[in-house]
Amino acid sequence: MHIIHVQIRVKPECIEAFQAATLANARASIQEAGILRFDVVQQQDDPTRFVLVEVYRTVEDQARHRLTAHYAAWAGTVGDMMAEPRSALKYSNVFPGEEGW
Amino acid sequence: MHIIHVQIRVKPECIEAFQAATLANARASIQEAGILRFDVVQQQDDPTRFVLVEVYRTVEDQARHRLTAHYAAWAGTVGDMMAEPRSALKYSNVFPGEEGW
Repeated sequence: MHIIHVQIRVKPECIEAFQAATLANARASIQEAGILRFDVVQQQDDPTRFVLVEVYRTVEDQARHRLTAHYAAWAGTVGDMMAEPRSALKYSNVFPGEEGW
Repeated sequence: MHIIHVQIRVKPECIEAFQAATLANARASIQEAGILRFDVVQQQDDPTRFVLVEVYRTVEDQARHRLTAHYAAWAGTVGDMMAEPRSALKYSNVFPGEEGW
């Protein structure tokens, strides 16, 4: 799997709007054939911090995701909500193996 | 959900041993009733870096996990493999909701 963890910090006044926009994007993204998980989690001791845990079958599936209307809408909407530029790291799965996502 | 992301950096010579010990722990942990996911991922551009993505139903389920023999075995085994102390952050789920893990 090709796994991305996106670290996001939003402005405090944007928490609810960011959640709404990101929920819409996650619900559409998880319908994509090449996306196995699209988890959105919020840090318990700092609700301005979120992680997107995106599990793609392949690198190409991530590229395809970037071309969707829902990704474009999300990226356009949340840009001004960020307290700092978001960052992403790429991972490969150790467990589970290719099944189990 | 009560979600933990554990950030780990191991000594380069310990990568394979760490993977083996962590696979054993993950396979046992995912059998616990209170654990819904126990993903282990390895950073693509730095194979000494791992993240454990642990999804518990409740805080109490995390406490129960800490009392298992497989957790004790893992913690005892990997302690000397760490290049720096591991760190953990706690999250709550935004998406999916209570179903979908």
